[in-house]
Amino acid sequence: MPIDRASLVPALKNIATRLRIDSARATSEAGSGHPTSCFSMAEIMAALFFAEMRFDPKDPKNPDSDRFVLSKGHAAPILYAAWAEAGAFHRADLLKLRRLDSDLEGHPTPRLPFIDVATGSLGQGICAAVGTALNARRIQSAYRTYVLLGDGESAEGSANVASMDRLDSLCGLTDVNGLGQSRPTMWQHDMEQFERRWRAFGWHAIVIDGHDLTAILDALDEARKIKRQPTMILARTIKGKGVSFVEGKDGWHGKPFKKGEELDRAVAELEKQFVPVPDGGPAANLSSQIPKPQSTSRPVVTPKPVAPPAYTMGEQVATREAYGSAIAKLGEADPRVVALDADVKNSTFSDRFEKAFPDRFYENFIAEQVMVGAAMGMAARGAIPFPSTFACFLARAADFIRMAAISNVNIKLAGSHAGVSIGEDGPSQMALEDLAMCRTQPGCAVLYPCDAVSAERLVALAAYHPGLAYIRISRPKTPVIYSNEETFAVGGLKVLRESGEDAVTVIGAGVTVFEALKAYDQLRAGGTSIRVIDLYSVAPVDRAGLISAGRATGGHLITVEDHYAAGGIGDAVDEAVAGAGLTVHRLAVREIPRSGRPEELLDRFGISATHIVDAVRAVAGKSVGANR
Amino acid sequence: MPIDRASLVPALKNIATRLRIDSARATSEAGSGHPTSCFSMAEIMAALFFAEMRFDPKDPKNPDSDRFVLSKGHAAPILYAAWAEAGAFHRADLLKLRRLDSDLEGHPTPRLPFIDVATGSLGQGICAAVGTALNARRIQSAYRTYVLLGDGESAEGSANVASMDRLDSLCGLTDVNGLGQSRPTMWQHDMEQFERRWRAFGWHAIVIDGHDLTAILDALDEARKIKRQPTMILARTIKGKGVSFVEGKDGWHGKPFKKGEELDRAVAELEKQFVPVPDGGPAANLSSQIPKPQSTSRPVVTPKPVAPPAYTMGEQVATREAYGSAIAKLGEADPRVVALDADVKNSTFSDRFEKAFPDRFYENFIAEQVMVGAAMGMAARGAIPFPSTFACFLARAADFIRMAAISNVNIKLAGSHAGVSIGEDGPSQMALEDLAMCRTQPGCAVLYPCDAVSAERLVALAAYHPGLAYIRISRPKTPVIYSNEETFAVGGLKVLRESGEDAVTVIGAGVTVFEALKAYDQLRAGGTSIRVIDLYSVAPVDRAGLISAGRATGGHLITVEDHYAAGGIGDAVDEAVAGAGLTVHRLAVREIPRSGRPEELLDRFGISATHIVDAVRAVAGKSVGANR
Repeated sequence: MPIDRASLVPALKNIATRLRIDSARATSEAGSGHPTSCFSMAEIMAALFFAEMRFDPKDPKNPDSDRFVLSKGHAAPILYAAWAEAGAFHRADLLKLRRLDSDLEGHPTPRLPFIDVATGSLGQGICAAVGTALNARRIQSAYRTYVLLGDGESAEGSANVASMDRLDSLCGLTDVNGLGQSRPTMWQHDMEQFERRWRAFGWHAIVIDGHDLTAILDALDEARKIKRQPTMILARTIKGKGVSFVEGKDGWHGKPFKKGEELDRAVAELEKQFVPVPDGGPAANLSSQIPKPQSTSRPVVTPKPVAPPAYTMGEQVATREAYGSAIAKLGEADPRVVALDADVKNSTFSDRFEKAFPDRFYENFIAEQVMVGAAMGMAARGAIPFPSTFACFLARAADFIRMAAISNVNIKLAGSHAGVSIGEDGPSQMALEDLAMCRTQPGCAVLYPCDAVSAERLVALAAYHPGLAYIRISRPKTPVIYSNEETFAVGGLKVLRESGEDAVTVIGAGVTVFEALKAYDQLRAGGTSIRVIDLYSVAPVDRAGLISAGRATGGHLITVEDHYAAGGIGDAVDEAVAGAGLTVHRLAVREIPRSGRPEELLDRFGISATHIVDAVRAVAGKSVGANR
Repeated sequence: MPIDRASLVPALKNIATRLRIDSARATSEAGSGHPTSCFSMAEIMAALFFAEMRFDPKDPKNPDSDRFVLSKGHAAPILYAAWAEAGAFHRADLLKLRRLDSDLEGHPTPRLPFIDVATGSLGQGICAAVGTALNARRIQSAYRTYVLLGDGESAEGSANVASMDRLDSLCGLTDVNGLGQSRPTMWQHDMEQFERRWRAFGWHAIVIDGHDLTAILDALDEARKIKRQPTMILARTIKGKGVSFVEGKDGWHGKPFKKGEELDRAVAELEKQFVPVPDGGPAANLSSQIPKPQSTSRPVVTPKPVAPPAYTMGEQVATREAYGSAIAKLGEADPRVVALDADVKNSTFSDRFEKAFPDRFYENFIAEQVMVGAAMGMAARGAIPFPSTFACFLARAADFIRMAAISNVNIKLAGSHAGVSIGEDGPSQMALEDLAMCRTQPGCAVLYPCDAVSAERLVALAAYHPGLAYIRISRPKTPVIYSNEETFAVGGLKVLRESGEDAVTVIGAGVTVFEALKAYDQLRAGGTSIRVIDLYSVAPVDRAGLISAGRATGGHLITVEDHYAAGGIGDAVDEAVAGAGLTVHRLAVREIPRSGRPEELLDRFGISATHIVDAVRAVAGKSVGANR
């Protein structure tokens, strides 16, 4: 039964007041937090949660639930308050905000069942919301996505994809409170600045007074009716609204009321704002009136086995090409798999997936952060996204990757064109810090195939590795060295050459595996034998396998990587063998590289077979002298 | 003497044709490159270089020269061709494009004297151009900045700061050729999409036919007259313009003409496009007509000594606070020093600099990539910029930092709120991968002070370290442990505790120095003595100092860092002591952290004094057993 406005509005007003109070109390108890940032958006939250969204407070993960993303994550207290008000947990728990023994963290994380992605790094929420909205289309659900932004983060702007994709299930709201952390925002309350930007981005923009509940409801009604366009509601608000001594005042960002007199005064002011609700009917208990999600029955997904690789030994295939084939096969086996790209699908070969599954392929144009952000949103809602681009351009999304790790979302990043082996395009196109970027994040699997067979196998492993994974793929064609039946494991390695007389172990990955094999042949001709390892799993790494190889080969390991010296394979091996009494020698790129032919560059920057041979000779000589 | 349009236009037309030919030849000779991306912008380049900009081809670094940034760096061949045409070097050299023995790399880098910042990572040029334009104001020069963008990269959008700052010396041009790498761009030739976005961003926008020279000249005239607003010229162009079989065709991106018949055919078509020049006068040799820069005489900068720290031993001061004081002192000593922030100046304490030097402080609002990009542009033109924000948000600019390293620009990044020691704000606000991000880049000095004195000293050292530097600062107050006279060095360390009986060396930095000192006290009470090192310079690192300490303490080093286990201090020490027969044990954050009090978190995540004591006991026991 719809509630008439005359009673709905004052009821919501009271909820808004309660949310303000809860936010004030919780932050004061914690001794830190952002109450004024919560205050400016209280009416919006009240209207959204109690008169607009369809969700079940006891089943927040329901696939057909409307989604809410709090892009301005520092306003977490009012988000928690809204969920408590809705009945998701006891209101008393709000006072545990930010404590070690509570999941109500300073900024929202998915430890809480009602949080899809961690927020708090501003400017990302809109992208995550794009992902959840795309997901609605993917799973053919009628759910809507609401994302609430701070006005400050509008300086970022990544709204184009949403309008391009005509995501009319996406509704944005901007809390224009005019004050940033350190000063008034760029445009303060000049609403026209916001409006013309969002209109320009192709969004339907609606400017309202963000404290006028009737206006908020009308705007939400309007947004729901807009077709083939996302909507942005631009709400003019007052930071600190509701407590006279902080309202619209600079210097109150991230500053709670002091417990005692200050807090009491604030609460007293707020309590005076309760108003009578004319209707004693449904409006008196809005929580029980929340419309439940429209459920759709859909078949349970049972992934089929992935088709095995079908290459010929010695065949020349770039790992990026095998990547394209691999995700297409995965897509066939598992409908949850989706692919995203950033205008390089013909280089990453993600276009093979697009060809097979055009409805599950998302082009993000040149906006890698939007791509990874959208992948976050999709993964949070059950997809297994493979966003791909040049590995170096993933750095554009580094902030999103760290937030993806914090969110523990199931994203499989693919970075092509790794290292100096790309050749002529020059340093701006060479990824030489990508292993460091991904390996640093706890739990991120870092996989680095050297041939087409391992590429296909590792892509399939990545898909079912829980959480974040990174697949590093290369531009040059390399020969197939593994049989189609070979098996691999996250955390494994392959010993490619070994004998009882190996002087040293050489550890390569990707293109340097072939340099190591060349070095093996050259050294063998001269009577020296070496052990060669393909370290296809850089993280986690096979500690036991590395130590056993090192002990069998005079205590010496040589790593060789198409990556800068810090943060990559050398560091991974060094940490893994710590305490085992082994010595790790490193060959890596140690200066800013430049344009040239791939083989020239491998040599110029110290990671070619020649350098491996030299290193082996230096080490083997020393090892003989030192150990015998 | 101004040249009349009737003759200027055909002369420029011919230059445009030559630039196309040069671009075709060079890329074909190289066997790779992007000729069609050059073709769409040939008239623009001709008009800019030969009828608009003021510069001296033989003195490109002249401080009053107009600046040109090629944001679409893959069009480098036509940029080189324009400089050759202008007389900067021999046209024959263009055929060395992309070779190891040539500086004409696949994408522009500052190896070339006329390149300010490396480009090729799309979406960054506009930010660098903001910096060069800000710089004109800083040095009070009349020079103008021109930046040429690809249409694809307009998906990024970071134009707000330019309009906010009313940079009317900045003129952008977008080459709207409608084709990306893998498919038509988001808006293809729908010029209104571009126009309304740039207008919305507060720019003066002009839409023209990018092949109509009169229109280009008129637009440039118009842009020059616009006050208090940057201008964006949106030029509708055809990719591959001028060669019939590639014009407007998809599938030609990054694909040169094959040498032989294909190239010959293309050149033949182009040669037919030469037109007669009516006037035999100045238009016949435009290179000699380029107006020289308006020179301004300005005093030579002689930096004064920086005022020394003035703290009291034991005084509680956060290193971020000392950072603010340090840059203010530096600003006094050296007028080239500028500071930038991203709406957290009251947290990074860069507001102390703003207060002293409001004209040299730049607020970038919440757009860290814009901040670092602008710093790149300013540094390239002689400023010493200190961009500061929360260390975790520097990840937003990771792509800019890698390009800053490639550009070898003189930027001093400052990241505050490092590690779990920030406490309650939770993981999204904790930088735990920033050391890895910066340490990976070759040549980047990574400095990490633990107290106010070392913070001030290291900031001053960073300012005069050539190239990129990163200063990691912390949120909590820590006691001053160094005297105001103490000296430091990039690549140094401090031994804080030592004796002849030290069982092990503990290496801390920043907040963990104090955990190590606490552990020292606790262990000493139990009769065990340890060596304690403050590793304030993480990169470069004092290899000799570390090895000597390790050798004096049973061969054991324990690192303890408020950072993830990979890529930071443990890795830095491990690599430094490789081959010295020492064992490195690591204490670091090994999982995604959460909200809590700082001291709780240090303990929970394994980097508190308690954990150090445990590690020392484990190691010292083992060391006794193993070595004696």
